[in-house]
Amino acid sequence: MRFKFSIIALLLEVVFIILFALFVEYDTENTRLYPFFKDVHVMIFIGFGFLMTFLKKYGFTSVGINMLIAAFGLQWGTLMQGFLHKRGGKIPVNVKSMINADFSTATALISFGAVLGKTNPVQMLLLTLLEIAVFAANEHLVTEIFQATDIGASMTIHAFGAYFGLAVTLILYRPGLKKKHENEESNYHSDIFAMIGTLFLWLFWPSFNSAIADENDRTQTIINTYYALAACVVVTFALSSLLDQRGKFSMVLIQNATLAGGVAVGTCADLTIYPFVAMCIGSIAGIISVLGFRFLTPVLASKLKIQDTCGVHNLHGLPGILGGIAGIIVTAVQPEIKRGVQLTPGNQAAALGSTIGIALLGGALTGAILKLPIWGQVSDQNCFDDSAYWEVPEEEKLHEINSNHYDEHSRFEAIM
Amino acid sequence: MRFKFSIIALLLEVVFIILFALFVEYDTENTRLYPFFKDVHVMIFIGFGFLMTFLKKYGFTSVGINMLIAAFGLQWGTLMQGFLHKRGGKIPVNVKSMINADFSTATALISFGAVLGKTNPVQMLLLTLLEIAVFAANEHLVTEIFQATDIGASMTIHAFGAYFGLAVTLILYRPGLKKKHENEESNYHSDIFAMIGTLFLWLFWPSFNSAIADENDRTQTIINTYYALAACVVVTFALSSLLDQRGKFSMVLIQNATLAGGVAVGTCADLTIYPFVAMCIGSIAGIISVLGFRFLTPVLASKLKIQDTCGVHNLHGLPGILGGIAGIIVTAVQPEIKRGVQLTPGNQAAALGSTIGIALLGGALTGAILKLPIWGQVSDQNCFDDSAYWEVPEEEKLHEINSNHYDEHSRFEAIM
Amino acid sequence: MRFKFSIIALLLEVVFIILFALFVEYDTENTRLYPFFKDVHVMIFIGFGFLMTFLKKYGFTSVGINMLIAAFGLQWGTLMQGFLHKRGGKIPVNVKSMINADFSTATALISFGAVLGKTNPVQMLLLTLLEIAVFAANEHLVTEIFQATDIGASMTIHAFGAYFGLAVTLILYRPGLKKKHENEESNYHSDIFAMIGTLFLWLFWPSFNSAIADENDRTQTIINTYYALAACVVVTFALSSLLDQRGKFSMVLIQNATLAGGVAVGTCADLTIYPFVAMCIGSIAGIISVLGFRFLTPVLASKLKIQDTCGVHNLHGLPGILGGIAGIIVTAVQPEIKRGVQLTPGNQAAALGSTIGIALLGGALTGAILKLPIWGQVSDQNCFDDSAYWEVPEEEKLHEINSNHYDEHSRFEAIM
Repeated sequence: MRFKFSIIALLLEVVFIILFALFVEYDTENTRLYPFFKDVHVMIFIGFGFLMTFLKKYGFTSVGINMLIAAFGLQWGTLMQGFLHKRGGKIPVNVKSMINADFSTATALISFGAVLGKTNPVQMLLLTLLEIAVFAANEHLVTEIFQATDIGASMTIHAFGAYFGLAVTLILYRPGLKKKHENEESNYHSDIFAMIGTLFLWLFWPSFNSAIADENDRTQTIINTYYALAACVVVTFALSSLLDQRGKFSMVLIQNATLAGGVAVGTCADLTIYPFVAMCIGSIAGIISVLGFRFLTPVLASKLKIQDTCGVHNLHGLPGILGGIAGIIVTAVQPEIKRGVQLTPGNQAAALGSTIGIALLGGALTGAILKLPIWGQVSDQNCFDDSAYWEVPEEEKLHEINSNHYDEHSRFEAIM
Repeated sequence: MRFKFSIIALLLEVVFIILFALFVEYDTENTRLYPFFKDVHVMIFIGFGFLMTFLKKYGFTSVGINMLIAAFGLQWGTLMQGFLHKRGGKIPVNVKSMINADFSTATALISFGAVLGKTNPVQMLLLTLLEIAVFAANEHLVTEIFQATDIGASMTIHAFGAYFGLAVTLILYRPGLKKKHENEESNYHSDIFAMIGTLFLWLFWPSFNSAIADENDRTQTIINTYYALAACVVVTFALSSLLDQRGKFSMVLIQNATLAGGVAVGTCADLTIYPFVAMCIGSIAGIISVLGFRFLTPVLASKLKIQDTCGVHNLHGLPGILGGIAGIIVTAVQPEIKRGVQLTPGNQAAALGSTIGIALLGGALTGAILKLPIWGQVSDQNCFDDSAYWEVPEEEKLHEINSNHYDEHSRFEAIM
Repeated sequence: MRFKFSIIALLLEVVFIILFALFVEYDTENTRLYPFFKDVHVMIFIGFGFLMTFLKKYGFTSVGINMLIAAFGLQWGTLMQGFLHKRGGKIPVNVKSMINADFSTATALISFGAVLGKTNPVQMLLLTLLEIAVFAANEHLVTEIFQATDIGASMTIHAFGAYFGLAVTLILYRPGLKKKHENEESNYHSDIFAMIGTLFLWLFWPSFNSAIADENDRTQTIINTYYALAACVVVTFALSSLLDQRGKFSMVLIQNATLAGGVAVGTCADLTIYPFVAMCIGSIAGIISVLGFRFLTPVLASKLKIQDTCGVHNLHGLPGILGGIAGIIVTAVQPEIKRGVQLTPGNQAAALGSTIGIALLGGALTGAILKLPIWGQVSDQNCFDDSAYWEVPEEEKLHEINSNHYDEHSRFEAIM
């Protein structure tokens, strides 16, 4: 990996700098949106990064490669989104475009969750490059051509990132991981680290959904998201207990399904749906997310060869579709005008359909490219293990000695 | 617990949604207070949640049930506070009411600290329901009837939450825990996790105290809190070392007593007390908090049957009273008008007295209800152990095997 | 340490309170800068504190004494900076002066990184006291006398703090630590804790650099810092892999060198350098920081007797100088006026030179004072170990027993 990764990364960084020199200029907008940018920024780097640290031996990659993808992707996202909205041949950057650049990386990070533990850093750079390009095109289609509304990006980020990632992981299917890998699990402290990610995502979701909302709609966007998330938490805890034989809570559900309400309320967050409807959306999101984790993910892995490490289908995919459907229903029931355009259920449905179609197609093509042997592939045995790509402190080896010691001791007792 | 918890939680969530549908509407206020809301939000979910992760085997419950209580409570708090301030039969929600909803959950989370490790999730839902109702009534009494000032809620949140929780834990007294439970302690990493909570509480306390202050008073509220907290840290470190035979610092004191300055300066934070008085209040708060942890908590547990897991009496109770007393003194010395009302020491004293009385009474009644056998009680042996309510990763069991192994080995050596 | 530390700390706190009573008054400025203050506040307490938790047995000191130094230092910094900018004999405090107070503590925290593990809390209080006084004088010289620009404080905070700390650690040289101390290393979870620090520093660096920028320059200051940091991350990952024989990433580089871009872009951050130049500065900073960690730090320790625990020379020293040089070049190439003054490369060079000279001199004198036997010195053996100053949970001892057990067992097997 040594030369492949570093040369590709340095080369792309040089290309970015040249493109920035040619095209990017300051915009004069003020810093009014900066508080919202910061929250999104925390969600991308702390939220997504720590959420994935739940794997006991993959924390360095989760938080480290998450940082790499996001820092790499935000430069690329600036360019990709900028090329679609050039002004006099130049790409003006301001705080709003920084928010959009961060947003674009979220799609790659969601897809990262689907393939977590099974790809190498070179593959992740390529995935980021390809996915953000496709994302920018699809977002342009949804907002400019279909003129659909999706303020919190239930469709364009969450469903898109999830189905893109699911298609990639399907193409990269590893029969050798059919039986659960011994490292594909959490330990006590890794689960608590993951809660740092969960909570910062949960807390700043109202900012995510309202960051680029119209000033007049921002308060209700915040309120809708706040109550949708709160209802989702209560329902998730209830179902987590209900579905367990001994009534115990499951950390994977609390870490993930509690966030589904924020995903699902995204499309309608700036519409006048009233808090109780937001709470209904949040509750339903919690239900389908919990059910997805419990019943769908095992089936996807065993029957459809879709190995979804973090369960992004349940956190981003299904709740994203729910958000899209909610958008169709709300615009059908109650006509609204946003940004000078009459919203229609037809346009919303077109946006949802095209997003999922493009994501699946883009993901499949990306998966096929990532499967090329030239990028190097981590062996099944080294999956879910930081030590494949990181210098890992010695203690881990000591643990192994310890457990060998234990085995020897057992054998010794057996001899006795 | 399986059906009891999930049915109660789902039922209450349905009730909340119905009440929201009937009563709650958007208010048109702007998002000017949103930055303050976010800080309070982080304090409630990250601050309180991680502060309690210090227990070595109770981190899932600390951060997870904290999230449940807060998400559940903020919906209920919206309704309870809303019913007392209805406008045309409706409850208008805006960012300020979201701050107040978050505030209301703080009382339940403080009380959670007193009973941490000894109650089940059903009991915690009930406690939250009852405590927030009583809190809303007491806060109405303090601010509307007595017209007392308590901008940082030293009395209405901190002292209230602490004495409510102490009364609950007194009623739920467990003789079986007289001897320290083997799980009622920290380990090295759990203590560092707890510092995440401490620091986010400490950092955003100026926002907590100034969130709903008058615009003109906000700067001095922030300044007073900033310097009170800084002084409190220095004094806490000094006393922590002074009271230890070998001069060593104690993590429990650094995690908790460093925050007492924020609690104690709350009542007077928006008054023109000047930074040096704030620093005096912060210093005294640090002193009484450290002394409370060292000398009072053991006595409360052994003589008064008050088992206060997190020492909320020292962090919220005593400093809250100190804040109330500081309010009495300051309003006696220097007449001030806030929100069109002349502040008087008599009203401040009435507010402090009624708050503690109502908290003790409400807590005792709540404790009696929680003691009913129908809610299920965790056995003494399973206290302070996540595995009673959570699926916990296997390694913990491995540790047990390991230590059994160690014991066997010792026995083996003894045999030799 | 018991009485020495607590009496010195309490005495100084009393002196602070008296000085505040005599000199400090509220300023009437509004809270416009409060969002920037909060980000800096998080960087100081969470960022610096957790960044240093990478040492496996020194997390309590890293995050705890970091808190002590910062809380102590911000009071002292308020006074030191205030005495240089008195108004009618009084020191007016507002949110901007709180930002500057927090800034002043950053110098002491950077120096703390150089001596981490090798000093006691009394020494750290003294270092903070002396360094902040020298910092305030040097900053006055740079901004008022030389009228140089250094908006993100590449020179006055980062280079200053680094070279001050390096001089201190040179004077306090410990031959006994020539061979790497067994505790001077990370473990798996301590490295993840450190990433919390890295990320919060990285995320809020745009606020650090723009906190006290002119309103009109703030957007471009934020943009420059954002892209400099992003480029730095990509380059750091690339070089980290490239310099490792097996192409593996190194956590120490990811934790530190990714931040060098924020340091280096500081001086020019508010100038119209355009994002691509910021990205070049960030990339070069990443390169020199990685090279510093790999090649320079070992040489400094072995040849020059400079034991730099956290490698602050590579994160703050060299990138700080790079920032200063960038400032010289930019002001030479493109004349700009800031705060009514024409910037000149001569003044920038004078600022850089004086900063490093004063830092080295101040650090050497401070080191000489800290070396006095009256403050107590931790033995070489107890370096990098919290248990010298903290009550540490028992488990650590259990680990020792465990490993003794292992040794016994080995011996036992040998006997067999």
